Amino acid sequence: MQIHHRGYQADDPRIKPAAGHGIDRSAEIPDEMDVLIVGTGPAAAVVTAQLSRFPSINVRAIEKRDGRLAVGQADGIQARSVETFQAFGFANEVIDEAYRNVEMCFWKPDKDDPSRIVRASRAPDDATGMSEFPHIYVNQSRILDYFLRDAQRAPGRVVPDYGVEFLGCEIDPDAEYAVSARIRYCAGPRAGEERVVRAKYLVGGDGARSTVRAALGHRLQGAAALHAWGVMDVMANTDFPDIQVKCSIQSHDAGNILLIPREGEYLVRMYVDLGETDEHDAGKVRQTPIEDMIARANRILHPYTLDVRAVTWWSVYEVAHRITDGFDDVPADQIGTRHPHAFIMGDACHTHSAKAGQGMNVSIQDGFNLGWKLAAVLEGRAPEALLDTYAAERKVVAQDLIDFDREWSSIMARPVDSWEDPAALEKYYVKTIEFPAGFMTQYTENLITLGTEHQDLAPGFPVGKRFKSAEVIRRADNRWRHLGHTHEADGRWRVYVFADAAAPALSGTPTADFADWWQNDPASPRVRYTPADGDTDAVFDTRVIYQQDYTEVEPYDVPDAFKPVKVPYGLVDINQIFASGHGRDIHRDREISRDGAIVVVRPDQYVAGVLPLTARDELTEFFARHMIAPTGDAPAAEALVTIAEKTTL
Amino acid sequence: MQIHHRGYQADDPRIKPAAGHGIDRSAEIPDEMDVLIVGTGPAAAVVTAQLSRFPSINVRAIEKRDGRLAVGQADGIQARSVETFQAFGFANEVIDEAYRNVEMCFWKPDKDDPSRIVRASRAPDDATGMSEFPHIYVNQSRILDYFLRDAQRAPGRVVPDYGVEFLGCEIDPDAEYAVSARIRYCAGPRAGEERVVRAKYLVGGDGARSTVRAALGHRLQGAAALHAWGVMDVMANTDFPDIQVKCSIQSHDAGNILLIPREGEYLVRMYVDLGETDEHDAGKVRQTPIEDMIARANRILHPYTLDVRAVTWWSVYEVAHRITDGFDDVPADQIGTRHPHAFIMGDACHTHSAKAGQGMNVSIQDGFNLGWKLAAVLEGRAPEALLDTYAAERKVVAQDLIDFDREWSSIMARPVDSWEDPAALEKYYVKTIEFPAGFMTQYTENLITLGTEHQDLAPGFPVGKRFKSAEVIRRADNRWRHLGHTHEADGRWRVYVFADAAAPALSGTPTADFADWWQNDPASPRVRYTPADGDTDAVFDTRVIYQQDYTEVEPYDVPDAFKPVKVPYGLVDINQIFASGHGRDIHRDREISRDGAIVVVRPDQYVAGVLPLTARDELTEFFARHMIAPTGDAPAAEALVTIAEKTTL
Repeated sequence: MQIHHRGYQADDPRIKPAAGHGIDRSAEIPDEMDVLIVGTGPAAAVVTAQLSRFPSINVRAIEKRDGRLAVGQADGIQARSVETFQAFGFANEVIDEAYRNVEMCFWKPDKDDPSRIVRASRAPDDATGMSEFPHIYVNQSRILDYFLRDAQRAPGRVVPDYGVEFLGCEIDPDAEYAVSARIRYCAGPRAGEERVVRAKYLVGGDGARSTVRAALGHRLQGAAALHAWGVMDVMANTDFPDIQVKCSIQSHDAGNILLIPREGEYLVRMYVDLGETDEHDAGKVRQTPIEDMIARANRILHPYTLDVRAVTWWSVYEVAHRITDGFDDVPADQIGTRHPHAFIMGDACHTHSAKAGQGMNVSIQDGFNLGWKLAAVLEGRAPEALLDTYAAERKVVAQDLIDFDREWSSIMARPVDSWEDPAALEKYYVKTIEFPAGFMTQYTENLITLGTEHQDLAPGFPVGKRFKSAEVIRRADNRWRHLGHTHEADGRWRVYVFADAAAPALSGTPTADFADWWQNDPASPRVRYTPADGDTDAVFDTRVIYQQDYTEVEPYDVPDAFKPVKVPYGLVDINQIFASGHGRDIHRDREISRDGAIVVVRPDQYVAGVLPLTARDELTEFFARHMIAPTGDAPAAEALVTIAEKTTL
Repeated sequence: MQIHHRGYQADDPRIKPAAGHGIDRSAEIPDEMDVLIVGTGPAAAVVTAQLSRFPSINVRAIEKRDGRLAVGQADGIQARSVETFQAFGFANEVIDEAYRNVEMCFWKPDKDDPSRIVRASRAPDDATGMSEFPHIYVNQSRILDYFLRDAQRAPGRVVPDYGVEFLGCEIDPDAEYAVSARIRYCAGPRAGEERVVRAKYLVGGDGARSTVRAALGHRLQGAAALHAWGVMDVMANTDFPDIQVKCSIQSHDAGNILLIPREGEYLVRMYVDLGETDEHDAGKVRQTPIEDMIARANRILHPYTLDVRAVTWWSVYEVAHRITDGFDDVPADQIGTRHPHAFIMGDACHTHSAKAGQGMNVSIQDGFNLGWKLAAVLEGRAPEALLDTYAAERKVVAQDLIDFDREWSSIMARPVDSWEDPAALEKYYVKTIEFPAGFMTQYTENLITLGTEHQDLAPGFPVGKRFKSAEVIRRADNRWRHLGHTHEADGRWRVYVFADAAAPALSGTPTADFADWWQNDPASPRVRYTPADGDTDAVFDTRVIYQQDYTEVEPYDVPDAFKPVKVPYGLVDINQIFASGHGRDIHRDREISRDGAIVVVRPDQYVAGVLPLTARDELTEFFARHMIAPTGDAPAAEALVTIAEKTTL
C-alpha cells in the first residue's frame, strides 16, 4: 500500500481523503446522478465500492431494507473471491475471521452394516495449487460489511441509502440522463414518499425477485424445481468426528447431508436432503419444521447423534435453475447498434442451488466486471461500447454456472445405492474443483481481450483467464511478495513486462527497447492515454520483472518506463521493479519465455493478452479500440518540497 | 477466533459485547477507580487494552495531550511485538500496512576510492527462524491506534481521557484505594480544574520525563550523553539503490547513517551521525538545522545524491543511557514485606538510543507483563504478591537493554577506519540479532516461573523464554496453524499437554491418566481454581497435541480434559485437540520427548515450566503459590437451547 507520497498521512492509511462527490456528500438523494445502484447484495456492494474509488462519479446505492443485513443466506467464498477481496484491500481481515477449508470428507454407508455411516475418503481442497488464497466460509453479511466499509473509506465516501426501494424506470438512450427511475422511501419519516430521479446508468443488484429485471422486461428462464433441501445453521454437541470439516454424508436410506463448517469454531451449516417434491403439491415441503430436519439429520448421521443446542438460522427451499433472458436494457435485435444504460447482476440474473457455493461468488465477479467499465466510460476514458462487453461476457459465465450446478446438485442428491462406482462422487468433486473455485471463467477474444496467437510465450497466463499470481522479489525492499497482490481495484490496466534474459540496462536490450517506446513514442498507449497532469502510471501500471537474482538488479540500471513519477512531489516510484531470488523465479513458475513477454491484464484481473517484447502495433491498436485520449495538455504538476517543523524529543 | 458460541454475533466479531464497567461507562472520570493509567504511549496502551478485557475492573487512562498522537518518534517493531499484536488480534492488519524488513545492507568506503561508498555486504533479518512473524517498521502512532481500538472494542470499552494530566500522588498501602492522585484538566472547557481521585493501583506510562516516576521519588540513573544524532523522516529521489532497504552506511570521513525504510513505499528515516558533543557546550548541537542534516547525508552517500522532496518529521538529540532506580512504589528496604500500588513502565524506566529500535518494543513488553497481573489480583484470582514480580522481572530486562544499546550505538558511531576487522559491524549485528528481535528475555525461577529441572523434556521451549510457536494440525478442521497464535491476551494460563506416543485414548495412557487427574482430582489446579459457573477452561486453556497424524485422531477418543464446555449453551469445544500431519510435527520441531511433556505458559506467553506427564504435586504446588480459589460453589449454568425463526428464501 502506497502511503504518504501525496502528503504525510497520520491516520489510518486505509481511509483515503475525501474528494469530488465525496466531499460534503448530500444526505438527500439528488435528482440527477451518474449511477443509481439498486440493492446492497454482493454484486451491488462491489460496484458501490468500485465506483466510490472514482470520486468524480456521483453514485448512490439504494436498499429497500432499512439497514445493514444481519444474517445472509450465502456463506461459501471461493478463492477467486478472496483474490478480489485482496484487490479491495481486506482479504486478510476476512480470512482471519472466516472458516478456512482445506479438506472435504466423504461419508457413506458401511458396507458391512449399511445403517451406519463411515468415512470413505478425504479430498484436499486445493491439491493442485489453483490459488494462494484459501477457500473460506463466512456469513455473507460480513462480506457486505467489508465492501461497504471500503466504499465509505474511498474518496467518493459512498454509503447506502437504506429504506429506499426501486419501483420502475423508463429509459431514453438519447438523453444525457438516460434513466428515469421511480423510487419510494419505505422506512423512516418519509415512508411512502415517491420520487423520480434520473441517472446516466442504472445497476440492478436486487436479487432473485429483481424489480430492475422486471422493469427491463426480462424474465428468469429455466426448469421448475424438483428437489427440496432444508438448510440450518446450528451449534451442536455430537460424537460425529467431522462436525467442523466440510462433508458430503450419504446415508443408506435416510438421505444426504452437505455439511459446511462456519466461522467461529462452533457453527455449522447443514443442507439436509428433503427428497423429491411432488410437482402437483409444490410448496408443501416448505412447511417442514426444524424439528423434522434435526430428526432427519440424526437418522442420516447414525450411529452418531447430533444434540442441537442452538439454531441460528434455517429455511427450506426447492432447487430452481434459472437464467435471465437479458443482462442489460439493449434488446437482442439492437445489440451492437446502441449501448446499454441499465444492467442487472447476481441473483437477478441467475438462480440455482447452494450446493456448489457459487451464488455470492459469481455475483461478486459480475460486479467486478461491470464496475471498472462504468468508471472508465463515465470518466471519459473509454467509449460506451465498452459497456456492451458486460452482458456478452457474463451471460456465458452464468450459463456455465447453471449447467455446472445442475449437474453437481443432481449428483449430490442421488441415492448412494444408484452409483455404479462408489467413489464417483468424490471423483467428480476433484475433477471439477476448478469450476467452483472460480477459475474456469475464460473470456474469449473481444473488444478488451486479445487472441491467443502468442500464448506460447507464457502458457502460465492463459489469455482470458484471471492472472494467476506468483512470487517475485521486489527490488526496492528485496522482499518476496505475490506479484498479483499489488493489483488493486483502481481501474488501471496492468502491463507486466517479463524481461528477456539480459541484465537490466537503459538501452540495447529488447526490454529496454520496449521501455523506450512505451515511455516516449507518440504511438505508445502510455503516452497517448495518460493525462499530463497526474501520475505517469495513472492509466497503465507498468512493471518489469527481470530474470536475474535481485542482487544483480540496481534501480539506476532500470529504464524510466518502469519508474513512474508521482504527483505532487515528483517522487520517483521504484517499487515496480521485480526480480528473482530466494528460490522464486516467476519465469519458471509461469512458463514465460526466456526471450521475454508482455502480459496485459484488465482492471478486473483477467489476462487481456500475451505479446512479444517487440509488440508495438498490436498494443497501439488494442488500446485504441477501447480507450479515449485525454483532451488538452494540462501543464505538469508543480513539484513541491515540504519541510516539517522540527520536533523536540 | 471463537464466535457465536454465546449467541449469534451478526456484527463484526472483533467488537465484543460491552459488560461490567463497559456498560454505560461514564464520560466523567470517577472519584474512585481500580486502576488509573497515566499516559497512552506503547506501554500504557497495552495495559489499557489488556484491562479493558476484564470489564469487572474500572480502569481509566488519562493523557495530557488533547487527542490522538499524530506522529510518534518510534517506528521499529520487532517480531516479539508482532507476536504480542497477534495476542491482541491485530497482527495481520499492522503487517499489511507496515514496511517489512528482510535484509540489512552494509555500505562502506570503497577500498580503491574511499570517497565513494559501496555495498559491502548483506545480512538477512531472521536467518535462523527466530519467529514466524516479521520485523516491521511503522509509525508508533499507528500502534497506539491499534491497541486503543482494541481497548474500545473490548468489553470494558475503555477510551482514554484526553487533556488530563497527572500532577502527583500520595500512597497509603493500607487503604482500599491506596493511591490518591492529583489530576488537572489541561484542555477543553474545564482546563485548569484540579481534582483528587483515588485508585487501587496507579500505572505510569508517561514517558522519559515521567511525572509518576517523580511522584514515586525515583530518578533515572546513568551516564550523560556524548554522541549526537539527527533524525529525519524524508521522501526523496535518489540514485542510491538501497533507499528502501535497512542500511548501515559508513562513510570515510563524513560520518555514518542508519537508514530505516518506512511504511508506504516512499518514506525513509535517516539517523545521521552528528559526531561527538562537547561536554561543556551541551545543547548546541541541537540547533543543527535540517538543511545541514540533508547536506551531511549527501556527503555520506557520495557518489550518490539525495534530493529530498519532503521532510515529514525531524529532530536532533544526544544519546543518553539511563535506567530508573525503582519500578514501583515499594522502597528497596521493604521489598517482600509490602506489595506495590504504583508502577512505572516504558520510557519512564529506561531511556537509550534509537539505534537498535528497542524503545517501543521493550515498553510493550513492560505493559504486557504488568497487565495480566493487575487483572488477576483485582479479580481476586491471585494474591498481591504477584505484583511484586513486575519490578523484579522487568528491571533485569531494562538493564540488559541499556547494556546492549550502549554497546550497539557506540559500535555504530565508530569511525570506519578504527575497525580492525572491516566486517566487524555486520558480524556483531548477526551475532546479537536475537536481542533486538526481542527474544533474549528469559525470566528466572520465581513465584510464576518454575526451575529447569525437566527442561530436557522439551529443549525447544526454554523455561522463562517466550513460547516459540510451531505449526500443528488442529483436528477439528484438519487445518495447520501456529499453535502459539491462538494464545490470546485473555489472562488465561496455557497448559500444553504434548502427548506420549500412544494413540488418543480415554484411559490407560500417560496422557489419559494426566487428563483424568487434571479434569477430576480435587488437587488439580483446574478443579481448584476454575469457577463453577463459567467455561470449564476459564482459567486454564488446556490443549493436547498428539504425535499421530491427524487422520488417526478422532475427537471421541480424546479425554474430556481437552474438550472444554462453554456457557451458556453447554457446547463442547473440540478445537483444543492438535496432531501432526502434512509434514508438521511439533514434537520434532521443538525437540519434545516422545514420552510426552507438559508445557505451562504464562498469560504473557512466557514458558513458566516444563514438566513430565506424571507431574501432579508440582502443578498443585506451583499454582497454589500464586492463585486463589474462587469462593462458593455457584450452580452450573443452565444449558440453553435456542431456535431461530425460520427464514423464507
